[in-house]
Amino acid sequence: MELRQNNTHEYVQPPQHLKKELCDLDYLQDPPRILSNYLVHAPKPFNAEPHLPLLINSGEITPTDVFFKRNHGPIPDIHLEDHRVYIGIQQATQDCRGHPSRVEWKALDMKDIMTKWPKATITASLQCAGNRREGLAQVKEVKGVIWKAGTISNAVWSGPRLCDILKSVAGVPDDLHHEMIRNFHVSFEADDHVKEDACYGSSIPLRKAMDPLGDVILAYEMNGRPLTRDHGYPLRVIVPGYIGARSVKFLQKIIVQPQESTSFFQKLDYKILPPWVDATNVDSAWDLSPSLGEMNVQCVICTPMEREIIPCSKAITVKGYAIAGGGRAIYRVELSTDGGKTWEAVDKLEQTPDKVSGMYWAWALWEKKVPKFNTSSQLVARAYDSSGNMQPEFPIWNYRGVMNNSWFRVSNITQLPQSNM
Amino acid sequence: MELRQNNTHEYVQPPQHLKKELCDLDYLQDPPRILSNYLVHAPKPFNAEPHLPLLINSGEITPTDVFFKRNHGPIPDIHLEDHRVYIGIQQATQDCRGHPSRVEWKALDMKDIMTKWPKATITASLQCAGNRREGLAQVKEVKGVIWKAGTISNAVWSGPRLCDILKSVAGVPDDLHHEMIRNFHVSFEADDHVKEDACYGSSIPLRKAMDPLGDVILAYEMNGRPLTRDHGYPLRVIVPGYIGARSVKFLQKIIVQPQESTSFFQKLDYKILPPWVDATNVDSAWDLSPSLGEMNVQCVICTPMEREIIPCSKAITVKGYAIAGGGRAIYRVELSTDGGKTWEAVDKLEQTPDKVSGMYWAWALWEKKVPKFNTSSQLVARAYDSSGNMQPEFPIWNYRGVMNNSWFRVSNITQLPQSNM
Repeated sequence: MELRQNNTHEYVQPPQHLKKELCDLDYLQDPPRILSNYLVHAPKPFNAEPHLPLLINSGEITPTDVFFKRNHGPIPDIHLEDHRVYIGIQQATQDCRGHPSRVEWKALDMKDIMTKWPKATITASLQCAGNRREGLAQVKEVKGVIWKAGTISNAVWSGPRLCDILKSVAGVPDDLHHEMIRNFHVSFEADDHVKEDACYGSSIPLRKAMDPLGDVILAYEMNGRPLTRDHGYPLRVIVPGYIGARSVKFLQKIIVQPQESTSFFQKLDYKILPPWVDATNVDSAWDLSPSLGEMNVQCVICTPMEREIIPCSKAITVKGYAIAGGGRAIYRVELSTDGGKTWEAVDKLEQTPDKVSGMYWAWALWEKKVPKFNTSSQLVARAYDSSGNMQPEFPIWNYRGVMNNSWFRVSNITQLPQSNM
Repeated sequence: MELRQNNTHEYVQPPQHLKKELCDLDYLQDPPRILSNYLVHAPKPFNAEPHLPLLINSGEITPTDVFFKRNHGPIPDIHLEDHRVYIGIQQATQDCRGHPSRVEWKALDMKDIMTKWPKATITASLQCAGNRREGLAQVKEVKGVIWKAGTISNAVWSGPRLCDILKSVAGVPDDLHHEMIRNFHVSFEADDHVKEDACYGSSIPLRKAMDPLGDVILAYEMNGRPLTRDHGYPLRVIVPGYIGARSVKFLQKIIVQPQESTSFFQKLDYKILPPWVDATNVDSAWDLSPSLGEMNVQCVICTPMEREIIPCSKAITVKGYAIAGGGRAIYRVELSTDGGKTWEAVDKLEQTPDKVSGMYWAWALWEKKVPKFNTSSQLVARAYDSSGNMQPEFPIWNYRGVMNNSWFRVSNITQLPQSNM
């Protein structure tokens, strides 16, 4: 690592990640996990979602060891005292000779991150864009981990606001009408190794990072404790209201630049490809589809589950979550016990806005008591958000299997005769 | 009008509107209109939408005499030089004795409005929340004007930013994290008479008004000319990204207050009532449903129209618009020529972001050439917005018939045999 000094700033050159061969990705250092909490889809990289009843019964704030785990490679073994976050600014895509413009870097250590700016605390749900991919896989073959509906969790995150750091370290203007805010992006890179690229990377519009109502933070705490390694230790981005893929873990580089991240995970993944794109023609389709940012409106029944066996005599309590992207609120959740023919309001719907910005970054939890229930019909749940957005009745297929938010259906519930209980 | 002076401010008492009897609403002063441009749903109050082919062929900026007209009463005859805008602030709902808190008023004349603050220019589409109510009326009886898909138009609006005025006249804090911004509303009242209440009124969250990315302005110009009487002369609010009902015309009062507007149009109208609410039980349902703000994702085919007769030999060009609320962009429009079984991308999709904030307040216009067309099947169009929100496949009925954004379908097109042309 080359370091040089001038009169006013410390300019640095950050380390470069080189893409590893797949066989060189070493999972031996992965942390221990409470496997019984999860439906494990893949051990290497470790991808697991909590069982839905555990998720919903854990309450508004998901305990860290219940929170879903989404990885693209081994968990890096980073030491707090050695870790540096490199902040770069690239003023233009190309210099006057047509070469890629130089990035000017500065470095922060974790002590800087933890002490130089006010600590903000944001309660925000993260949801993988592939949550409920299973529903699209049932329509037609998709690419990706076949997630059920548990790749969402809600936690309390603490750390400095990214806007404060970008203002003071990178000199990004404060004025939301500045043309840089309108046109630039903030790119994030992880200090890790993945199979798809040199490291995990992603970007968000600079406007989202600088907006006081955007609530983007660099979190070093989750649920009041230092981040665990599975959740990005020692530092991760939290981009509330966006798909989880933008909340980059193991954060090592932040670059303010005129274009989106060129990472695999920004350009060749996490997009709603059109329905005429599949494995045969996907290569030519990526550039035509915009990258995902904000989440869409979502609603899931967590309990009872498909094919669950329940006592005959007892009323059942249907419980679930709902969420909308971009800080929008959930305005209503409706439940049908007859496959979607008729609807009723849920009994309880609770969602807490951010105590400073007032934005709805955390999920809404809901429940409804159903005293009598005909098991031959289907439970269906749907939500409306504060923009009047509704959900499609049936899955709208896309090859990457992302953003499935069709009405959530639970069927094949069995009620045991009373004598068996 | 009582005026009193103290050392620092001019406090005023604004005129009070009294509710008129329906028979006393006088439409004789309504301005002349080019009726041939419109499908007129009602003459008194004047409610009319442009014919869809005219709307779409007028291009990105809708000419003022093609723009849809939505009124709740006679057009007031206001004189620029006499008009005052009263700005009030109410610090709490109740005073310490439990009485409604006093509102402190200040007055601006139109010269103040037009000269004291920078003039902003915003291109924004307004869409009535009842656009496409016809589609819900076909499901079950609804209340309201049975609008087709033409109650949307796009214009260039100019005037001061509301945030600048509220800062300097009402002392509203600049800091978007201030608790007042999080909790208060801005209520607007028109200098008019309507049948439902003392005047037309509405409100928006104070956060939307103060957000530099919210782009709320007080417009005295439309398409580079003074507002016409039908569009709110001499002054109206423009709340981009929100349902048209919040862009109050003939603006007379602006009140910063701790609660939503208590106007009929905020509390007893413009809400997505649940599907179990109809004429028989609506009275108890209003308070349980939140007021509408941002629009949802919408997509309409303007030409060809239902039951249109087209030449046999020629390829047809399908044209339409799409829009999302809250400044979100339209990411894709898809067209089906077989009733929704298969989809293709449109050939052209153009949407212009705001040149200062970068937000997408203006509609997207799209078109697609369809060389061969089986008239026995249905044209269907649908859009995705930048939050991955999609549209429901079929109308989701609500009693007030608002926010219908189901897939847009055109059928019963007839192609004349070539010899007839």
